[in-house]
Amino acid sequence: MASTTSPAMPVRARDLGVPFEGTPGPLNAITDVAGVRVGHCTLLSPAGGNGVRTGVTTVFPFSSFNGAGVPAGFFAFNGTGEVTGALSIQEFGAIFGPIALTGTSSVGAVRDALLAWMAPRLSDPDTAYAHVLPVVAETYDGDLTQPWTFPIQQGHVFAALNSAVGGTVTEGTVGGGTGMVAYDFKGGIGTSSRQFEFGGQSYTVGALVQTNHGDRRSLLMGGQPVGQMITDLLPAIASAQVATRDGSIIGVIATDAPLLPHQLTRVAKRAAVGLARAGGIGTSTSGDMFIAFSTANAINFRVGELQTWQAMPSEQLHDVFYATAFATEEAILNSLVAATTVTSEVGLTVHALPHDRVRAIFNRLRRP
Amino acid sequence: MASTTSPAMPVRARDLGVPFEGTPGPLNAITDVAGVRVGHCTLLSPAGGNGVRTGVTTVFPFSSFNGAGVPAGFFAFNGTGEVTGALSIQEFGAIFGPIALTGTSSVGAVRDALLAWMAPRLSDPDTAYAHVLPVVAETYDGDLTQPWTFPIQQGHVFAALNSAVGGTVTEGTVGGGTGMVAYDFKGGIGTSSRQFEFGGQSYTVGALVQTNHGDRRSLLMGGQPVGQMITDLLPAIASAQVATRDGSIIGVIATDAPLLPHQLTRVAKRAAVGLARAGGIGTSTSGDMFIAFSTANAINFRVGELQTWQAMPSEQLHDVFYATAFATEEAILNSLVAATTVTSEVGLTVHALPHDRVRAIFNRLRRP
Amino acid sequence: MASTTSPAMPVRARDLGVPFEGTPGPLNAITDVAGVRVGHCTLLSPAGGNGVRTGVTTVFPFSSFNGAGVPAGFFAFNGTGEVTGALSIQEFGAIFGPIALTGTSSVGAVRDALLAWMAPRLSDPDTAYAHVLPVVAETYDGDLTQPWTFPIQQGHVFAALNSAVGGTVTEGTVGGGTGMVAYDFKGGIGTSSRQFEFGGQSYTVGALVQTNHGDRRSLLMGGQPVGQMITDLLPAIASAQVATRDGSIIGVIATDAPLLPHQLTRVAKRAAVGLARAGGIGTSTSGDMFIAFSTANAINFRVGELQTWQAMPSEQLHDVFYATAFATEEAILNSLVAATTVTSEVGLTVHALPHDRVRAIFNRLRRP
Amino acid sequence: MASTTSPAMPVRARDLGVPFEGTPGPLNAITDVAGVRVGHCTLLSPAGGNGVRTGVTTVFPFSSFNGAGVPAGFFAFNGTGEVTGALSIQEFGAIFGPIALTGTSSVGAVRDALLAWMAPRLSDPDTAYAHVLPVVAETYDGDLTQPWTFPIQQGHVFAALNSAVGGTVTEGTVGGGTGMVAYDFKGGIGTSSRQFEFGGQSYTVGALVQTNHGDRRSLLMGGQPVGQMITDLLPAIASAQVATRDGSIIGVIATDAPLLPHQLTRVAKRAAVGLARAGGIGTSTSGDMFIAFSTANAINFRVGELQTWQAMPSEQLHDVFYATAFATEEAILNSLVAATTVTSEVGLTVHALPHDRVRAIFNRLRRP
Repeated sequence: MASTTSPAMPVRARDLGVPFEGTPGPLNAITDVAGVRVGHCTLLSPAGGNGVRTGVTTVFPFSSFNGAGVPAGFFAFNGTGEVTGALSIQEFGAIFGPIALTGTSSVGAVRDALLAWMAPRLSDPDTAYAHVLPVVAETYDGDLTQPWTFPIQQGHVFAALNSAVGGTVTEGTVGGGTGMVAYDFKGGIGTSSRQFEFGGQSYTVGALVQTNHGDRRSLLMGGQPVGQMITDLLPAIASAQVATRDGSIIGVIATDAPLLPHQLTRVAKRAAVGLARAGGIGTSTSGDMFIAFSTANAINFRVGELQTWQAMPSEQLHDVFYATAFATEEAILNSLVAATTVTSEVGLTVHALPHDRVRAIFNRLRRP
Repeated sequence: MASTTSPAMPVRARDLGVPFEGTPGPLNAITDVAGVRVGHCTLLSPAGGNGVRTGVTTVFPFSSFNGAGVPAGFFAFNGTGEVTGALSIQEFGAIFGPIALTGTSSVGAVRDALLAWMAPRLSDPDTAYAHVLPVVAETYDGDLTQPWTFPIQQGHVFAALNSAVGGTVTEGTVGGGTGMVAYDFKGGIGTSSRQFEFGGQSYTVGALVQTNHGDRRSLLMGGQPVGQMITDLLPAIASAQVATRDGSIIGVIATDAPLLPHQLTRVAKRAAVGLARAGGIGTSTSGDMFIAFSTANAINFRVGELQTWQAMPSEQLHDVFYATAFATEEAILNSLVAATTVTSEVGLTVHALPHDRVRAIFNRLRRP
Repeated sequence: MASTTSPAMPVRARDLGVPFEGTPGPLNAITDVAGVRVGHCTLLSPAGGNGVRTGVTTVFPFSSFNGAGVPAGFFAFNGTGEVTGALSIQEFGAIFGPIALTGTSSVGAVRDALLAWMAPRLSDPDTAYAHVLPVVAETYDGDLTQPWTFPIQQGHVFAALNSAVGGTVTEGTVGGGTGMVAYDFKGGIGTSSRQFEFGGQSYTVGALVQTNHGDRRSLLMGGQPVGQMITDLLPAIASAQVATRDGSIIGVIATDAPLLPHQLTRVAKRAAVGLARAGGIGTSTSGDMFIAFSTANAINFRVGELQTWQAMPSEQLHDVFYATAFATEEAILNSLVAATTVTSEVGLTVHALPHDRVRAIFNRLRRP
Repeated sequence: MASTTSPAMPVRARDLGVPFEGTPGPLNAITDVAGVRVGHCTLLSPAGGNGVRTGVTTVFPFSSFNGAGVPAGFFAFNGTGEVTGALSIQEFGAIFGPIALTGTSSVGAVRDALLAWMAPRLSDPDTAYAHVLPVVAETYDGDLTQPWTFPIQQGHVFAALNSAVGGTVTEGTVGGGTGMVAYDFKGGIGTSSRQFEFGGQSYTVGALVQTNHGDRRSLLMGGQPVGQMITDLLPAIASAQVATRDGSIIGVIATDAPLLPHQLTRVAKRAAVGLARAGGIGTSTSGDMFIAFSTANAINFRVGELQTWQAMPSEQLHDVFYATAFATEEAILNSLVAATTVTSEVGLTVHALPHDRVRAIFNRLRRP
């Protein structure tokens, strides 16, 4: 009798026994927020050879791109990084297009490609004008890819935009996370979600992160100093350990809970709590920045017309805050669990988090 | 036959020929915004003698005090001053009670008195709890009154609270403005308003300022360097000129236009434009800070209930911004025009702006 | 033969087996930073009776109060609280006098008392003028003491100022922390310190917190969800559980490392990491705010004279950041460990953290 | 006898009789600050034809590009624009390379070109890493050039970088200012400077702006509502008036006065005063942002080494603030005076400010 094998589901942090708080959505992904879509374009050359290890990830707040905006907030926990469009989010309280995550040296190319992609899709000059400040965030992948070669071209960005879908999100060494290093392990893209109730209604908060931060000793998993329990497998060329650069983390928080822009800024701050729960500190030159948006109120341009908003009351945001912190923490650890070992062209190997050893740590802790 | 003389209407800046932009409301005062009330308590000892020259001014966003809040924003153009409650405005986007303006050394007494006044009026513990962070702003009146004697008592604050009314606002050497010095003239309280249309509806922006800022050379009236045209009448003891302290300005902006908290922060920033139009620069140790609120959406505490807001669209706030800048500029100059000469207990005389000379300047400019 | 018993040393969090990162200073207290002094005034009526359960704690940056300032930074992780002087710290980058911590309804009285205490000690008008914006921070002790009775008088504040000393810091139910509730246990004052090396020189970071934040489920100790392991001992009247108010936390960070004001703002942000490591989230109406100062550069007023600063390089602040996060985390848990059970006049009992049960948890975790 | 004609000196705002405050440096330009260099690349197709009307302007803080940084501050008066690197300036307090100004849709290309230009000049990986967050600011030139054609190429940026020199700065329809519209006149690049004394030493503040802001009615020159006196010459196609987009202004402030990063943020705020003095309001979707740097303290990377800074005292910055406001005001008006009439490919003509009519206005005002 033939056995039917389904493709293996990717292992995620909670599969290794890492404990988390709160109730995830069905996919435990940012796409649990209805309408949110994620796309990737990955440039990953084979181990050791010439070539590039970088990419682009896109997050769409909407199921269709039609020029409408979403209310948004921003928090720079440590601002030594780049998020184009951040000043406008802070001032205007809105995002009008897809968010892109990439490597530091590709911000310009990705920004221009976003403009080129949006232009033919925006016939109305007013909505087109609203989109001239695209949101592109970066972390530095210059340890695993050559930062000065500018490999990202318009076509790569278009691929990341055109492939954006709901449903399961590929994590780890993918898209903007392809060349990233976190806690001296291979980092990358991770996602998670949480559900909560307010006024008898269920809402979801989803997080997607691009992790490139932290040194080994600081890694916490489920509150445990796992980074101090796995002290080998450090980035190395041949067997010579190599210090990697001070990294960064970018987080995108999506929710269908109705929130005003200033409330979303508060939400973005709670993503930093998730970072801290995973041991992050915001090192000196780390760009640790968080964008939060709500899909519950669409922003359109209509001259002379008041807009009607719905919003949760500001003194009752606890559950949104917890959901944000918990989802961000798990998204960070998911990025580590999903990422695969990568070797750069100069032979720098950044190792994947060893699943078995993490499992063993949490098996041991669970024993009575 | 007896002649009937009505009390003289106070002279205001535009009565002296100073040109202003925009259309004021009927009173040209913050009280043109429906429901807004202003109260004063003035402690003004006779010229030269012992005693105090200070006071308290209150601004209520509402016609009745019932525990509801208003959305609010805050901008510290130069933050070297005190506005209690400012952190909460920035975070929460709301003000729940009256705003008080006073001298620097009275902030504590006024804050406590606000609490004591509100407590018996708030039976519901939830609304009471919302009011434990009162908004008290200050400028430094230590040139005209002794700052270390703490003359303001609870009763004075209660008087300023209980006397708050709509209608005409007394300006000049009154309330919190009693001991203030601006542009080396006597400063104090000033107010003004502007009307604008949006979507076929008329809205009002009102400004109330407590002026204690600026040196003489910087004074602009209607864009004219009036401070450089009136170089005498400087603060002096006997005939010896005395340098006064680096001062401050506090501005309260009220509007009935429906605005969200992050939009009101933008409004508060435009009050600084009004300050700049009057020649203000935000000197090194000046506390130049602005609070803006909207009366169009009331904030109440109801567990588990979404709130519905109305708001102007963020890309169409031009007329609110202009109204704010123009009303603030005129309020500043109104404070100078209304203020009267005051002499401190050590004999420091701070002169009122000489109306006739200002009139002469603008008469001359108007000539063909 | 007479036995010599020394007074029992107070138990602290690490004595219960809670693991912490980093190397504390000799006292594991903010006073490990040379010159820093702490004072308390405690008003604690007997259990259940009428009376008050509140107080004041003071932190002096200097061994003597002579009018000089220290560079400082500020971070409002959640700004729904009061820190007078915060706007000036943010603008001017300096603190000129003692910092006071107290209950919400005492901010005014404490502020005025600080002014009254400083005035006779500052003969030079310039330095006196610099001190008119005192730093008073609060958390809300209205669950254990009646917030509207204003029990703090000038004399209490003077006592907290005049008793400030270096050396061991009393923790727990003391000073400003007397009436505080954290994680549904009794909270209060806690302190800790960390040492680190830079350029061959040893530096210290010290933290002092007033804890009044968090619900039980969120408490983390050494990364363990201890709050979910001790689910009894909740605040109760008789045996009826009582929900306490959304609380707050204030943290003061001192260091002898030479840092510029904008670097100290970055340091203040890392105190929020310490809060997150102890499970804090910054709930909706919590005032979670942090002040950081450096004693390495004194700020004096000298007309027309450039000042010379020393500063660590901005890209090499990692160890200051880690020290801040770790010291803040431990200070928070120290406040819980030191606090004692308190019962309010209406019979609300807030329990001390049970030492034996915490010990048991960490004993069990240590077992192989 | 042959007459010798020297090339005509460009007319500047003060040549038209516009009164200004303060004492300019020898060139009345940002290059009066020693070491500061400015370069332009201008793409200006003939009137009416196809082609582009855009460009790039660069500002170097240093006479040579060697990887060192300068302390810097940033202020978003209205943040609806793009300044890449702004988050890093705010966090780190430094700028490490040239600043570039361009049109909105060219930010990406200019950013990448800056990286490509810097890479071969930075052999040390540490200094290279410091430069991966270039500062590129924009205003929207989509009224006079097609924003979606991305005409700026790497070579144009290199030209603007390689041509940067001290000395006289070309103003008006040049570099990043080529396609800009201000007050419904042709805008562009303008510059000015002011000198002041501190402690017996002379210092300079220089401003360079790219103006694209304001509607006609708001234009103030020397405090006069000149925009309300010249109501014709509005942007038009054939004779049909065309509403141009809500614009923006970018300002770069340079000084040789020794200032710390948080002081430079205060300086950047005073550039907004200069904007207000020229009638600017910060309209709804305007990106009105200001960068300030000081050349007096160089920032280099040296591991484990304290840095020594000199700085003006924070309470004595008045003259820096005035210099900033006055230089920015004059730079704005210089940009208008220097700009020339430009017609877009669709026939939109934006007129130069008519010199003769401005002269006439100020001649009339000067008459006794």
